[in-house]
Amino acid sequence: MKYPKALEELIASFKKFPGIGPKTAERLALHVLLGADQEDVKSLSSNLLKALEEVHPCKNCGILTDQDLCFVCKDYTRTKQLMILENNKDMISIEATGQYHGRYHILNGVISALNGVGPDDINLGSLKQRIKDEGITEVIISTNPTLDGEMTAYYINNLLKDELEVYRIGYGLPAGTNIEYANETTLIKALEGKRKM
Amino acid sequence: MKYPKALEELIASFKKFPGIGPKTAERLALHVLLGADQEDVKSLSSNLLKALEEVHPCKNCGILTDQDLCFVCKDYTRTKQLMILENNKDMISIEATGQYHGRYHILNGVISALNGVGPDDINLGSLKQRIKDEGITEVIISTNPTLDGEMTAYYINNLLKDELEVYRIGYGLPAGTNIEYANETTLIKALEGKRKM
Repeated sequence: MKYPKALEELIASFKKFPGIGPKTAERLALHVLLGADQEDVKSLSSNLLKALEEVHPCKNCGILTDQDLCFVCKDYTRTKQLMILENNKDMISIEATGQYHGRYHILNGVISALNGVGPDDINLGSLKQRIKDEGITEVIISTNPTLDGEMTAYYINNLLKDELEVYRIGYGLPAGTNIEYANETTLIKALEGKRKM
Repeated sequence: MKYPKALEELIASFKKFPGIGPKTAERLALHVLLGADQEDVKSLSSNLLKALEEVHPCKNCGILTDQDLCFVCKDYTRTKQLMILENNKDMISIEATGQYHGRYHILNGVISALNGVGPDDINLGSLKQRIKDEGITEVIISTNPTLDGEMTAYYINNLLKDELEVYRIGYGLPAGTNIEYANETTLIKALEGKRKM
């Protein structure tokens, strides 16, 4: 015997999320039925669909947006610098420092031999054209200082180094961690310490 | 700046779950938009509503069911024993042993002075009447051996002890562990619960 079918199906749905194991999925599903405010559950249900419908990567840079262009791409005061990041969370962290005023290009992924992710699988196809169209004068590659992040930086540097100045974010970052978890001061130091690739 | 509104709302919805902090909520919400199969997200959305609609505690015993009475309450072969448990997960664990053939009464909670949960806040109202109606001859209180679980067991024992045999589930050493690592309370309880070989 296990739970009623609808409950088992809910557990299975939660289990599809990365980092949600069987025990956590069971706990979440039981909370839906026994602990949660029914209105909160209905909100989650509709917010899932609403987010799917309304939010998508900016067609220019990859930042998640509910508009055609994201808030950065619509901001004419941004400098001609372009920061390349692995994901949206990293962009939020960089923006929070208030020290960077350029544009972004979000890869939404990273080149990874181990996971079989190649250059064509991440948001790189439009990069060269974009740099030309927008008159970008400087690229700062801020992929994470991990094996995959470094390989991706190396690949992008090779792609761009003949056309403009390419920088790597400064090594104020402790190796092996993620930008998302770095504190603001570390991020500011890293920005100051950018170096030519 | 933060994320688009629909994404922020989805993060907020995830954050309402116990054990889901801001970072995890953000990770789950971003997965919905950037990693997940859209069909899986739609399934989660509809499974949440379906579970709310179809699944509820059995009106007799508190076991989650999509019927009027749960699989145990409909089972006429069950003995006249009644095991009192804190929650549905504990029932699943007891059933998995295959060694208990009685009925259940699920409290869906536990009396807790610290959390302001009183006897009226858990599934106790119908207990005495149920014992009479079903001709229960023996009650086994299997709340958890925690402060709140013990208090709840003590309260229920006082409620029922004049009417029938009330047992507490056995205490002692968990199988497969070492005495060296058991805490004092466990060892004292194990000594109290010694039995003839």
